[in-house]
Amino acid sequence: MSEIKNIAVLTSGGDSPGMNAAIRAVVRAGIYHGANMFGVRRGYDGLVNGEIIPMDAKSVANIIQRGGTILKTARSEEFKSIEGRTKAYENIKKLGINGLVVIGGDGTFTGASKFIEEFDIPIVGIPGTIDNDLAGTDFTIGYDTAINTVVDAVDKIRDTAESHDRLFVVEVMGRDSGLIALRSGISTGAEAVLIPELTVDYQAIMKRLDQTRKNKSSRIIIVAEGDNEGGLVVAEKIKESFPHYDVRVSILGHIQRGGKPSCMDRVLASRLGVASVEGLLEGRRGEMAGLICGQIHFTPFGKAIKHIDKINDNLTRIVEILSL
Amino acid sequence: MSEIKNIAVLTSGGDSPGMNAAIRAVVRAGIYHGANMFGVRRGYDGLVNGEIIPMDAKSVANIIQRGGTILKTARSEEFKSIEGRTKAYENIKKLGINGLVVIGGDGTFTGASKFIEEFDIPIVGIPGTIDNDLAGTDFTIGYDTAINTVVDAVDKIRDTAESHDRLFVVEVMGRDSGLIALRSGISTGAEAVLIPELTVDYQAIMKRLDQTRKNKSSRIIIVAEGDNEGGLVVAEKIKESFPHYDVRVSILGHIQRGGKPSCMDRVLASRLGVASVEGLLEGRRGEMAGLICGQIHFTPFGKAIKHIDKINDNLTRIVEILSL
Amino acid sequence: MSEIKNIAVLTSGGDSPGMNAAIRAVVRAGIYHGANMFGVRRGYDGLVNGEIIPMDAKSVANIIQRGGTILKTARSEEFKSIEGRTKAYENIKKLGINGLVVIGGDGTFTGASKFIEEFDIPIVGIPGTIDNDLAGTDFTIGYDTAINTVVDAVDKIRDTAESHDRLFVVEVMGRDSGLIALRSGISTGAEAVLIPELTVDYQAIMKRLDQTRKNKSSRIIIVAEGDNEGGLVVAEKIKESFPHYDVRVSILGHIQRGGKPSCMDRVLASRLGVASVEGLLEGRRGEMAGLICGQIHFTPFGKAIKHIDKINDNLTRIVEILSL
Amino acid sequence: MSEIKNIAVLTSGGDSPGMNAAIRAVVRAGIYHGANMFGVRRGYDGLVNGEIIPMDAKSVANIIQRGGTILKTARSEEFKSIEGRTKAYENIKKLGINGLVVIGGDGTFTGASKFIEEFDIPIVGIPGTIDNDLAGTDFTIGYDTAINTVVDAVDKIRDTAESHDRLFVVEVMGRDSGLIALRSGISTGAEAVLIPELTVDYQAIMKRLDQTRKNKSSRIIIVAEGDNEGGLVVAEKIKESFPHYDVRVSILGHIQRGGKPSCMDRVLASRLGVASVEGLLEGRRGEMAGLICGQIHFTPFGKAIKHIDKINDNLTRIVEILSL
Repeated sequence: MSEIKNIAVLTSGGDSPGMNAAIRAVVRAGIYHGANMFGVRRGYDGLVNGEIIPMDAKSVANIIQRGGTILKTARSEEFKSIEGRTKAYENIKKLGINGLVVIGGDGTFTGASKFIEEFDIPIVGIPGTIDNDLAGTDFTIGYDTAINTVVDAVDKIRDTAESHDRLFVVEVMGRDSGLIALRSGISTGAEAVLIPELTVDYQAIMKRLDQTRKNKSSRIIIVAEGDNEGGLVVAEKIKESFPHYDVRVSILGHIQRGGKPSCMDRVLASRLGVASVEGLLEGRRGEMAGLICGQIHFTPFGKAIKHIDKINDNLTRIVEILSL
Repeated sequence: MSEIKNIAVLTSGGDSPGMNAAIRAVVRAGIYHGANMFGVRRGYDGLVNGEIIPMDAKSVANIIQRGGTILKTARSEEFKSIEGRTKAYENIKKLGINGLVVIGGDGTFTGASKFIEEFDIPIVGIPGTIDNDLAGTDFTIGYDTAINTVVDAVDKIRDTAESHDRLFVVEVMGRDSGLIALRSGISTGAEAVLIPELTVDYQAIMKRLDQTRKNKSSRIIIVAEGDNEGGLVVAEKIKESFPHYDVRVSILGHIQRGGKPSCMDRVLASRLGVASVEGLLEGRRGEMAGLICGQIHFTPFGKAIKHIDKINDNLTRIVEILSL
Repeated sequence: MSEIKNIAVLTSGGDSPGMNAAIRAVVRAGIYHGANMFGVRRGYDGLVNGEIIPMDAKSVANIIQRGGTILKTARSEEFKSIEGRTKAYENIKKLGINGLVVIGGDGTFTGASKFIEEFDIPIVGIPGTIDNDLAGTDFTIGYDTAINTVVDAVDKIRDTAESHDRLFVVEVMGRDSGLIALRSGISTGAEAVLIPELTVDYQAIMKRLDQTRKNKSSRIIIVAEGDNEGGLVVAEKIKESFPHYDVRVSILGHIQRGGKPSCMDRVLASRLGVASVEGLLEGRRGEMAGLICGQIHFTPFGKAIKHIDKINDNLTRIVEILSL
Repeated sequence: MSEIKNIAVLTSGGDSPGMNAAIRAVVRAGIYHGANMFGVRRGYDGLVNGEIIPMDAKSVANIIQRGGTILKTARSEEFKSIEGRTKAYENIKKLGINGLVVIGGDGTFTGASKFIEEFDIPIVGIPGTIDNDLAGTDFTIGYDTAINTVVDAVDKIRDTAESHDRLFVVEVMGRDSGLIALRSGISTGAEAVLIPELTVDYQAIMKRLDQTRKNKSSRIIIVAEGDNEGGLVVAEKIKESFPHYDVRVSILGHIQRGGKPSCMDRVLASRLGVASVEGLLEGRRGEMAGLICGQIHFTPFGKAIKHIDKINDNLTRIVEILSL
């Protein structure tokens, strides 16, 4: 085993449901393996400013079911400068911290990579983001909860759409990735799903809307915010083609980030939390713990943050087949 | 008892959760009392176009828990004209329908009043709207579900607000009424609630935001859409006064209309459904069935639609006291 | 105004959703009115053992949405003896506490009454129990959440009942009161509701089950645990009369106590929390704050705990009419 | 492509959330590929009794979000006899049905195997059961929803456990499999999980309960119903060892089967629905469509129903590490 005796954990970037479950798992796995555990508040900002607190098993009791992150999170400007990172290093050195677990997305791992390079700190990462846009793991922590939140919201909108024979354009999160849109689209029986990864074929959509008219009284079109048009523009185009449709737009926004984590996200966070600490103790650094086909895998940060295209052709086919 | 033997029910205006529970109660209460029951599709449009179907006890089985309305709803332009209403009258006359229960809000009851005046049709109303803006009933059907949907959404937003030390401005429904905003504001621990019934004292709000800074890491401000500013403008004003705040806006939109009705809305809908039919059979017409202090009351349409101010001073005081 | 400067709050008896919202309201209202606030842990046990902690506005931040009670609760044996109560008195005297808010049910108020009698302590009560079995308030804190939990569970059971053409007997909480059973029964379209307040007419139930056979594929019978038979016995009797029915029993149990409080319970808790403190400061003691028809009322403990029969005849009629 | 032109779909065995999503996908995929589609009511009973109805795209509209199965389900005694299966064959022959999709668990596939053997009917299966106890798929349809229902219920119970410093023994479904218990145990931070696949080491459990006493005020022990003791016995044993603990038992029961399917179950059901039809048309029979590591796989019925042990050692380790 290693010489790592003092481990700190932080959450960084946008919050995602399950971050608390991951913090809990990291802290308890560390204690289980004999380490002293610390929590850093407000992500890298807390490292820079020395907001670092000791954590015991009880400090993470009864948080597995809570949304958000008890350690808080932030996007740190200071940590982007060498001065900031130097301060951060001095703070952890002072406390004897010689291992770090960072929970977040690509920005988090980019910062960690620099920090390792300059100060040779062992860091292992955990994928905590609702966007599911990292390589090296089938799912990121928070994604399953976010898509369930979207599905729950669109089910409600469908009630109104059905009652009024309306077409709703629903914009969901996903600046660079259509994964939230695609799975929630299948799950809500959406008539079309527009995502940044695929060019929109408006003519095909309009044709389909027209052909399926007799089977449907309501229609839902899901648009990822990263699609170059956005929900409002899509709605305008549909109105142009079908002026008699009653078209409405709903932008789901921030409700997608919060809430109780789903069972899947809690299990994922628990497994990756334990794996990250055990990886650290086994000498891993600069790697993200992920779950691929039910097995733990470690992926170098540089590879994890490359936005591989996870869009599954089969899923886009399913939307088309089922929106008859 | 009356000569009414054939009763039709319709839903009109914006859909609200619990409308199906009300339809079920009307149909079954009618059958219980020996009437033949009919359902009209798409509100008054269905009367005009003759979309009227017979309903039996089974036709309303297993719908009490469903959002929206199985009869669909619409805002009818045709019914606003005497020609439209004449067609409607002929359609119901043809089927021998001599009693009508209409579920909806002020537009619905205004239409019903005209119809009664011109054609002497017995009509009783049921308050089905999420806005709770009718006189003659403590609560309208759908209001309790809508405020729970808002509370659930704002709880999620609070997770993110807490994690990021942010201030969120959340815009909720309520064009003419701050009731959704006020109760959901109290329930989510909002730091301020802005409603159309009260002039906004920005200085007081800013002062309070400033004074409570040390107790709070996150803040929520609830704004009713009918407030003359709207969520985006309110956010801008706060940013002007507190440029260092991380301010975000969330407009909840259409999710507030749908979803499974709450227990309270189902009980209310069931009671008013039965009461409306029994009222009709006892000779009432041009009145809305409502529940005041747990007792059934009937209020003439003309009085029910007068937007009385239901804003309770005590509730606005509570927001202030509890947002310490 | 009064001389009360130091106020303590405690929760006692079975926990109910909204107790945290009430604690928050008591603490903040006290601070708002210039008092020093204390929290007592584990109900009267904490008074006896001196588990009393100072509370500020921040100590109750972000708890309004949480089930259970952060102060914990217990049924205290020691406080039932004069020795226990003497210890309790000495503990609060030591801290200068000269006002007490107790949140709970009839056991809580009975204890409070003795304590007042013996030591002349100003105490005001808040009704916190899922059973809604207190006089002096339309609803107790936690009741609305509990019935929504029941409704949510029975909706799930209905899915299975419908899929299998089954009859389910569902036992819900309510040892002395059928209020949970009655409202959840109406809300889930139950074919029958059995409650302790009314003698069961099995013949009538069996007749109804038989008559409505053609309209129904599934049936739900709700039984309050306090009904002298209990769910299992009821199920046996039905099987005797209808041996070919596929009858199942579900005892909902403890899930009915927990969970996020509903909007209604949060508003109620917030209002009664403020009212209890203001009542105390105005000189009230030995009274429970309640809400009747939207207005705050104070009722002496002795009267509040008398189990008045809140069973509304109209509600039992509704079950019969709607279970066609 | 094949000569299959008329395809019927049925659901059989215990209902599971997502069965409706699967029915919808089968029907629409069949229509998409040019087949005529039929629905069989009440599982194999409907085949035997000729309860077979034509289905079009609209007949499965707006059901993706509903629990249970619109086709109903049953365990058929008649189909177990050659006479019953002969009747079934005659019924489908009469309608020209030459392909069948069966949704269910091991009983369903065992019946299908016999039917194929005797009458050479092309049948493809879809795994629809909450137990996740089939080989050939990572997850069965309904499992994800069921574990989320369990987690939601245990979260509520945890509120009460925390408030009262109690230990709760919660019995969950899983006659032959501890999968529901294991994942829900990790997700709710259970202190121990007892499953049929592993012998219970009571001494170890008691030791752990004792050691972690200072970190915990509440404890949850999850017991799979198939564990040879059952929840009540486990509770008794704990009380023997720790007579001063306040121990309660909750048997979750039938609520675990119903409810809206989760996003994951809807996507799974949609994918397997399409795959089953396409498999049938490509000439597959006697196989179950499953999803392994995100890819569609087909597994012969005989292999799918062999209860392979899916218990992951890592998951049992996680329970131990995290229940510190």
